[in-house]
Amino acid sequence: MLIREATADDWPHIWPFWHRIVAAGETYAWDPDTSEEDARALWTSPGRRVYVAEDDTGAVVASAYLTPNYGGPAARIANAGFMVDPDRAGRGTGRALAEYVLDAARADGYRAMVFNAVVETNPAVRLWTSLGFTILGTVPDAFDHPRHGRVGLHIMHRAL
Amino acid sequence: MLIREATADDWPHIWPFWHRIVAAGETYAWDPDTSEEDARALWTSPGRRVYVAEDDTGAVVASAYLTPNYGGPAARIANAGFMVDPDRAGRGTGRALAEYVLDAARADGYRAMVFNAVVETNPAVRLWTSLGFTILGTVPDAFDHPRHGRVGLHIMHRAL
Repeated sequence: MLIREATADDWPHIWPFWHRIVAAGETYAWDPDTSEEDARALWTSPGRRVYVAEDDTGAVVASAYLTPNYGGPAARIANAGFMVDPDRAGRGTGRALAEYVLDAARADGYRAMVFNAVVETNPAVRLWTSLGFTILGTVPDAFDHPRHGRVGLHIMHRAL
Repeated sequence: MLIREATADDWPHIWPFWHRIVAAGETYAWDPDTSEEDARALWTSPGRRVYVAEDDTGAVVASAYLTPNYGGPAARIANAGFMVDPDRAGRGTGRALAEYVLDAARADGYRAMVFNAVVETNPAVRLWTSLGFTILGTVPDAFDHPRHGRVGLHIMHRAL
């Protein structure tokens, strides 16, 4: 697997799984009807680093972004987002991409990483805790899940 | 004191205390050098409700915004920000404005309010807890305070 910074040419390969994941409404606190144009602006807005993972055939199977979570006096706390093509799940892609982005964040001078809204029923919570993230707190009843009803949103944190 | 929704004419009266508060670098995780144009975009961007409080002479002495904290399946959790002219502090303006905005959020159908980054040395933490907010968690060592060094950022929450 190759992990690298994304180029503008990668977006059309990110969008199909981005759309599928957000439209399912189970893991991201974004509008399930988000248009491709708005999705691109969300994922690749200026000031963000964007990464992709390619499988052995060169197909883009996952993407991540890295950005400051706050500004000014708190700008050394990073935020990131991760999406793995659901058809390619369970092969270690998410873990490899996460480790790559954590290293990149440390190299960029960030002191810690925060995820602001991890749906508590998301299986990825196990990946994050295995990578050293802790749950700082949970916003109760915040997310209307299509199968589980109202669930909480974890705020997760890891020092770098 | 009159509290009302802001108009475009109010911004020039908000900016002087907005600038003073952010330039001090003690309470907001925004760039202390934020330009007036960027500040206006931050405070009054589309989709936000903006409020002002006037004193008995009609002078604008405080402002707040109200906006969804997340999108899509979590859009019923609100976020808000509050600034009181430091020259007018200690007269109950912040509390009156906060109660007004909490009522407005409830009326708009929000289920709860979250503040994402309350500097733990900010005296306003006492106001928020007295209004029923709890500290969900604290991002440690996140904020470089000019007098206190590295301090944490509280994530605060209140059901509506």
